[in-house]
This record gives sequence, C-alpha cells and structure tokens, in this order.
Amino acid sequence: MSDTKIYLPESDIPRHWYNVIPDMPTPPQPYLGPDGKPITGAAMEAIFPPAIIEQETSSERWIPIPEPVREALTLWRPSPLIRARRLEQALNTPAKIYFKYEGVSPAGSHKPNSAVAQAYYNAEAGIKRLTTETGAGQWGSSLALAGQMFGLDVRIYMVRISYEQKPYRRSMMETWGGEVIPSPSNHTQAGRDALAQDPDSNGSLGMAISEAVEEAASRGDTNYALGSVLNHVLLHQTVIGLEAKRQMEIAGDYPDVVFAPCGGGSNVGGIMFPFLADKAAGRDLRLVAVEPASCPTLTRGHFAYDYGDSVGLTPMMKMYTLGHDFMPPGIHAGGLRYHGDSALVSQLYHDGVLEARSVHQTATFQAGVLFARTQGIIPAPESAHAIRAAVDEAVQAREEGRERTILFTLSGHGHFDMSAYDRYFAGELEDMDYPTEALETAKANLPKVEG
Amino acid sequence: MSDTKIYLPESDIPRHWYNVIPDMPTPPQPYLGPDGKPITGAAMEAIFPPAIIEQETSSERWIPIPEPVREALTLWRPSPLIRARRLEQALNTPAKIYFKYEGVSPAGSHKPNSAVAQAYYNAEAGIKRLTTETGAGQWGSSLALAGQMFGLDVRIYMVRISYEQKPYRRSMMETWGGEVIPSPSNHTQAGRDALAQDPDSNGSLGMAISEAVEEAASRGDTNYALGSVLNHVLLHQTVIGLEAKRQMEIAGDYPDVVFAPCGGGSNVGGIMFPFLADKAAGRDLRLVAVEPASCPTLTRGHFAYDYGDSVGLTPMMKMYTLGHDFMPPGIHAGGLRYHGDSALVSQLYHDGVLEARSVHQTATFQAGVLFARTQGIIPAPESAHAIRAAVDEAVQAREEGRERTILFTLSGHGHFDMSAYDRYFAGELEDMDYPTEALETAKANLPKVEG
Repeated sequence: MSDTKIYLPESDIPRHWYNVIPDMPTPPQPYLGPDGKPITGAAMEAIFPPAIIEQETSSERWIPIPEPVREALTLWRPSPLIRARRLEQALNTPAKIYFKYEGVSPAGSHKPNSAVAQAYYNAEAGIKRLTTETGAGQWGSSLALAGQMFGLDVRIYMVRISYEQKPYRRSMMETWGGEVIPSPSNHTQAGRDALAQDPDSNGSLGMAISEAVEEAASRGDTNYALGSVLNHVLLHQTVIGLEAKRQMEIAGDYPDVVFAPCGGGSNVGGIMFPFLADKAAGRDLRLVAVEPASCPTLTRGHFAYDYGDSVGLTPMMKMYTLGHDFMPPGIHAGGLRYHGDSALVSQLYHDGVLEARSVHQTATFQAGVLFARTQGIIPAPESAHAIRAAVDEAVQAREEGRERTILFTLSGHGHFDMSAYDRYFAGELEDMDYPTEALETAKANLPKVEG
Repeated sequence: MSDTKIYLPESDIPRHWYNVIPDMPTPPQPYLGPDGKPITGAAMEAIFPPAIIEQETSSERWIPIPEPVREALTLWRPSPLIRARRLEQALNTPAKIYFKYEGVSPAGSHKPNSAVAQAYYNAEAGIKRLTTETGAGQWGSSLALAGQMFGLDVRIYMVRISYEQKPYRRSMMETWGGEVIPSPSNHTQAGRDALAQDPDSNGSLGMAISEAVEEAASRGDTNYALGSVLNHVLLHQTVIGLEAKRQMEIAGDYPDVVFAPCGGGSNVGGIMFPFLADKAAGRDLRLVAVEPASCPTLTRGHFAYDYGDSVGLTPMMKMYTLGHDFMPPGIHAGGLRYHGDSALVSQLYHDGVLEARSVHQTATFQAGVLFARTQGIIPAPESAHAIRAAVDEAVQAREEGRERTILFTLSGHGHFDMSAYDRYFAGELEDMDYPTEALETAKANLPKVEG
C-alpha cells in the first residue's frame, strides 16, 4: 500500500508565491481612505515596508520567495499531505480524503508562513520592531517566532480577557522572545482613552489593532504586521496550495473538491488560489470556503465597502461583511470570528469562482472528535469546520455510491483549545444562526461610499 | 545545502524491534516476588497478555512487529531526524547536532510507540478493556489513543491533583475516548481505603498504579498497561533508534555521542539500544542518559532490588533506585520524577555500557528556551534535559576546536507544559540536589533480598 503521508524534499518548497490577482475575472476593488478615495502606497509606508506594499497590489502572477524566507520555512515545510485512510474506513465511503496538515509548524498553524515573510521584509527595510494584535494568540505566537528568527523585537497587544484566560499562548509568545501587553494598555493614546472610560475593560480585537497600529505609525523603527485579510498575507500562504498540488500529483490524484475554513481568508487563499488557474482552464473543480453559521460572512453578509476593524481606523475594503460593528458570538473558533473577509476571497466568491457554506458549532466539534479518534490529530476548532464539510461530502459520496477525491486544509492542531473540547463534551456548546435583524442593522450602518 | 529534515518512507518503519538482552554483557536479573523468588510468566497473566509476557524475557535479538502495529505507527512514523542548524549557528560550534523528533505523534511524545503495540496484543488476546495510571497525562493520553485504534475501552486512573490542575491533558484523553478517573477513587479497594483515611487525598502515582492493577487483576476482560520501565516497553521504543540509525546513514554521519532524557528508561532504551551493538563491536561511541539533579537515580542511586511502585505491590526489580519511599521533588519534568529505572538500563549502566549525567532544572529550561528560539519547537521539560547535555557538548567542541557529531532524542513538545515555562520566566524555579541524608535513609529501607 502506498504511503499515507506524502512529504516533499526541502528543495520543493516553492520558489515563487502565486499571486491570484492576474487570474481573477474581476480585479479586487481598491482600498479607500477616509475621504473615499483609493489609498496610495505612500499612505501605507508608515506601517508597512516597501516590498509588502508592492505585493499588496502587484499584478505579477509569480513573485519570488527570498532565499532567507525559504530557509526559515524549512523549519517545518514542506508540510505533509496525508491520506485520511482511517477516517475513510470509519465513514465506509468510496471517497478518498486528503488533508494538507499545517499544524506541523512550531506555532501549530499555517500562520507562520506569512509571519516569516513579513519579518524578513521588515528586517530588510531596516525596521527593528514589529507590533501586532492577537486574540486567541495564534498570530501573535507566529509573529513572535518569526521576529526571533530575523532579529526583530515583537510587541503583541493581546486582548486583555484572552491575556488572562489563555496564559499558555502568552507563555508561548514569551518563550519565543515576544513582549505581550494586555490591551487596552497605557502604551498608546487609544489604550489610555479606553482605560479612562473603563479601567477594568476586557479589551477587544478592534482595540488591540488600534494600539498596535498607533504605536507602529508613531515610531520610525517600528512597523505593523497583520495575520490575515490583506492580499500579501494570502499571497504568502499560497505555499500551502502549491505544495499540495505537487503532492496530489505524486499521489496520482486530483481533488474534485477543496475545503478550507474561512475567517479572514488566509486559509482559503493559501490552499485554493493555486488551484484556481486549473478551474479557469475548464477543470471541473469545486473550491468551498467553510464558515461558522454564527458568523456567516460570505453566505449571509453584504458585499460592500466596510472598515477592516471595529472602530473605523483602517481603510475601507470592498468585501463581504457582517458590519464593522458586528458583535462576535462566543464560539470557540476564535480565528473565524471576524466580521469581514479578504477582498480577494470576497470578489472571487461574488464572481462564483469560490463557493461557501456554513456549519454549526456542535457539528464541527463532532467532526473534530471523529477525526481525532480515527486520524489521531486533535484539530483546532477552526480546522474542524473544514473537516465537517469533508465528512459531509464523503458521506454524500457513499450515499450516491460514487467515488470522489476530497482535499481539505487542516490549518492547525487544537492543543491550546482543549477547554473548548471540554465544553463540547460537557454539552455546554450552543448552536446559533446569526440574527437576521443584526444583518439589517449592519447594512444600515455601513459606511457611505460614492459610486 | 542538504535537507535539514530527514524523512523515511513508511516502508522503512522497522519490521522488527531490537531486543537488547542477547547483547548485554550481563543479562538483567529476574524480577522477584514477595517471597524473594523469581516471578513466573503465569503470575503475570492476570494483568498482561501472553505476547507481552513472552517479550518481557525473550532472548531473541529481533522480534517481528505485527503488521497492524506497523500500520498504526504510520499515523506519525517514521518520525523525522532533524539537523539543528540554527542551534549550531547560535552556539557557533563546529559540532553537528541532530535530533530525532518524537513530538510528531498525536499525543506529542514517544509514548504511543509502545501504547499501540500493547493495545494490539491485548486486543489479539481477547481483552476488552485496559487500565493504567497517569500523572501528568502523557502515558494516559497515549494509551487512550491506542485503545481507540484497536477497539479497547481504556480507563485511566489520574492522580487527583493532576486531574484538577491539568484539565487539558484530561480533555485530550477524553477526546480519544478514554475514561479518566481521579485517583484515589471508589472503584477499587485500594482507593476506598485511601479515601477512608483522607477524603481529600491528592493522590499519588503509587496509589493510581495500585488502583489500575487491582482492577485489571480482578476482571477477566481487563488488563493493565505500563508506559515505561519494563523490558517490553523499551523493546517497543527501539523503533526510534532503528529509524535514527538509517537516517544518520542517509545524512552521511554517525554520532560520537547520543543523549536521551532518563526517567523510567523508555527514551534511553528507544534511541540507544540499537546503537549498542556497534559499540560492542568496537565503535567509539558514548551513550549518555540525562537525568534531573533532583532525582539522580543512576548517578547517585543504589543498585539494588527494590519495588517498582511506592507501596510495594509490584515485583522487586534489580535497578538503580532512590528508594521506593522516595518523595519526588516538585520539579516540572514529571516524566523523570521516578525513584527507579528500567532493569535493562540499570544493568547496562552498572556494566559501563551506558553513561549518565545529571542536570539542574533552571539550566534545562535555559537550554529549552534557546532551542525554541533557534529551532522553533518548544520542548517538553523532560526533553530539555537531553538538549542541555547536547548544548554543553557542542560548547565543549567549540572550546576544544574539534568537530563532533551529536544525536539526541527530542521526546516530546511542551504544549501542555507552558505553565512550567511561565514559572521559569518568572524566576520561580528552584534548583536542588537530592539530599544525601535521604539517600542514606532509602538504603536502610530497601527490601531485604537473599543472595
């Protein structure tokens, strides 16, 4: 029997990222500033290095990966493509199920793929420090690791309630040399204002973004780094799909359908964009983003210009959105709890290139536990969304008595999410659909944009 | 530049375990029963299946690995051998440092290597349930996973204080379908007696062993499984060293020295035994077990017959021991906090085939953090003992200006040990040497054995 795990040599780490923009039926709409006009690269220079700004709007299909970034990626890449034979057997399905496993990175998810690239370009530009925000800690720990690798100090504004409730992710960031500050803090004007209003504030991701951006914008030696949503982040993640295509070739297979969990879009972009060209060339291939029913950005959101953060500090992006004043429900897939979505993923979904579906929380944990009991790996709750969709597809294949080749991305392990599994086993998780009234309110509150 | 990570195809998972007994200068002394006489295989049948009992005393050098066990191992094996280039650079050493990374298993350590074998043999023998004990949870989670794979129910007696303080390891066991019982419990006479004495008892590993063994001995459908110390466990772990030898060949290198953390001996046996034959054949090779200075079993213990547990329920084994009434100090490498050591490792150390050294707690965390900051992976505190020794060796090579090839086993990741890193960063960890008086007392309290 052929190997269930397909590894590639390090020389097969891609030499170029794949930029989807030239292959999009409709190019993404420009980001708009507060004046409603497209923002310029110069406006971004306060917080991003030139190479990143260039990548954000590049029309080159292939962008070279610098050798030091490839070398950093060798710590965990190429990641394995794994045939989930035990899951197939448990489902008694004629479908073949493959997953690309990104939990092998030191931080336990796909996030470091972009973190090392961003750290490299900032170091090259003479930057000494990076700031960022983190909620559950996946991105913050990835950037702490990447900063350590390229000699940058990293300050992470961590939502205070997470700082207190998730001490292990904080320890992880500190182990890699990151400085973790509970937000709101006294380090920024935004933080001081918030504390003046409420000294016991729990904080929010929007507030943490404000603090990180304010500090980066006000210091010449300091830039800001974001872990999803923006074009350059999705670009860096395409190593996932490029490797997966090569590995599927080695397996002698090609997917009929690809699933990825969808929050800000970095998983969807990472695995799916490299398959897009084949689809454009006529290949019968479904690319399906999977999101929580409680945060149904693509499946029920508005396709409109909206802010990237909750308080309106960022540029406006044309995207699917639940409204920037979205109140995230208390689900455990923290990485999918974002009101908007990447402009690239949004436009491709709008144009029918990508599909989307939503799943409920308990059904995702049920699939996650089935996966753990068959394949061993305990998935992150975010990743379990893709597993749920893959399992449903495999069951459908069984019911229809048809073969099918399924590929999904297992974006990370759940070692820091065991309290969510605890709550699942205790029957404490609730399923909710995002309320229709809230969608109406969000629509009314969208920023007004000309044209 | 050649790959830093060396993977093998699944067909290179060893087809035989290597049994060190035929190659030992002195064979291990027999286990003794309460009457001071060697215990028979028949006496072990109440809690172990025949195949395991046979392996415990086999004189065959090579023991075939059943295909279903090899197939179970494919979930994570062969594990990678990794060249720690970034660590070498940070140390500016001429030494080459390789590590065999066992943290890729779903449970995050080497423990499942034996768990799947034990689960298989018990299922083959018609056993329906397994019991075991767990402290920090590494072994319990490994057996829960293995039981799930071979259709066995697994009940884990977890030391009550750990059950309460380490809820995430408990969730992990439950995710794999294990039943976790805080010990002492009302399920056994031993537990009921303990609770009658102290209803608020924190429990101990010795008590949990007593409960697990009592239940297994009293039920025909139930056996017991142990995660270290015994010959068959070390045998199952030799896949580590067998793979590592093949991988070193591919790397075109051979180790001058091999380090492994040493608690019950399963890491030492796993990586080192397959190298022993080369040493016996004249190869200049050092094999060094690394243990905590606070629990210096090999380096300061007595070589004598002693009980395997703290209350004297198990057979007596000829081993290095700090005394079965050893009070474990509160160090964070829970897996190394055992009063005794495998009979095989003890005899080989006594005969000068293996060396041993001890290291202090803060020095191990210092090495663990250096490793995390260079190689990314955050090591388990147990594994950091081997890293400490490897780093010292590499520094010595630099000081002497000599090349050297170092191999160590990175037995697991530290994702469930971040609170220990927290305490390290907070400066709360203490170094201690095991008190000489306690060694004297232990000597006086050793069981009296004829001859």
